[in-house]
Amino acid sequence: MVWLTGLPSAGKTTLARLLGDELRGRGRAVEVLDGDEVRRHLTSGLGFSKADRDENVRRVAWVAGLLARHGVVAVVAMISPYRAARDEARAASPDFVEVHVDCAAEECIRRDVKGLYRRALAGEIANFTGVSDPYEPPLRAEVTVRTDGESPARSLGRILDALEERGCLGAAGTVAPWTS
Amino acid sequence: MVWLTGLPSAGKTTLARLLGDELRGRGRAVEVLDGDEVRRHLTSGLGFSKADRDENVRRVAWVAGLLARHGVVAVVAMISPYRAARDEARAASPDFVEVHVDCAAEECIRRDVKGLYRRALAGEIANFTGVSDPYEPPLRAEVTVRTDGESPARSLGRILDALEERGCLGAAGTVAPWTS
Repeated sequence: MVWLTGLPSAGKTTLARLLGDELRGRGRAVEVLDGDEVRRHLTSGLGFSKADRDENVRRVAWVAGLLARHGVVAVVAMISPYRAARDEARAASPDFVEVHVDCAAEECIRRDVKGLYRRALAGEIANFTGVSDPYEPPLRAEVTVRTDGESPARSLGRILDALEERGCLGAAGTVAPWTS
Repeated sequence: MVWLTGLPSAGKTTLARLLGDELRGRGRAVEVLDGDEVRRHLTSGLGFSKADRDENVRRVAWVAGLLARHGVVAVVAMISPYRAARDEARAASPDFVEVHVDCAAEECIRRDVKGLYRRALAGEIANFTGVSDPYEPPLRAEVTVRTDGESPARSLGRILDALEERGCLGAAGTVAPWTS
């Protein structure tokens, strides 16, 4: 289970897709669980309070766990702003790789992929992470990528390096079980 | 995706577990998604109104679909009382086998595995399927088992026959992809 956490517009979805493609190319079964898609299918009805965000994370972690125990690499891309909720997901997973997709707030605001920072800064959206809601950065992420200072390809390479170091990738061309 | 639907205490969970064990014994990757467990992990907060039950079914169908596309047989055991919601799950799945776990209401009430019929009949539980909430039996289930008139082993055998007929099981000992 690879868990990408970070501010809105930090680059989580981009990296999750790149990582998914790369792992599939290496013969792995992969499912990318992206925050927006997950909310549509799994957690419509949940809002953005701390309790609802935590429940959102719990559900995604449960689904990712189902996939992982069948050898599917679950790549999760979610803001998941609260440390305790991420640590709960980590504790429930036999192999959890936390990736901090780190990007200065100013750069995220400049990118504003979905135009939501603009609305949050105008006071039109409450509980917006990085503006009106907290983000608790990981204290012990397996990988930290600086998407405001390196290319997506470079960030991807660093995630792959970390997976390789942990023995998660197996030899090229083989389909090693994700968890031993 | 094998979808077991029926009244409370009809025998869905029993059959789902037997089917899961049997398919695992044949070398298949299987995940049993049981109504109660699913509500705990995926849909806490949803109640038993028609809208909430339908949303519950939609979420489970989505998760089952994720598993199925990685070759995992998802065996779903849920009351899923509304025909339209089950048909929606069917429409979204490339290979959907609906099993009507049919059992006379009187016999379900006699079994009352969780003691809930008693409470529903006493008026302590609202929206209880078969007592104060409707159950719409399937019109075109791939299999109907009569758990009030045959043993679990016999019901299981008939489900397996239906899967075999559809070419879902492959040759003994092989791990054929569930969907072609």
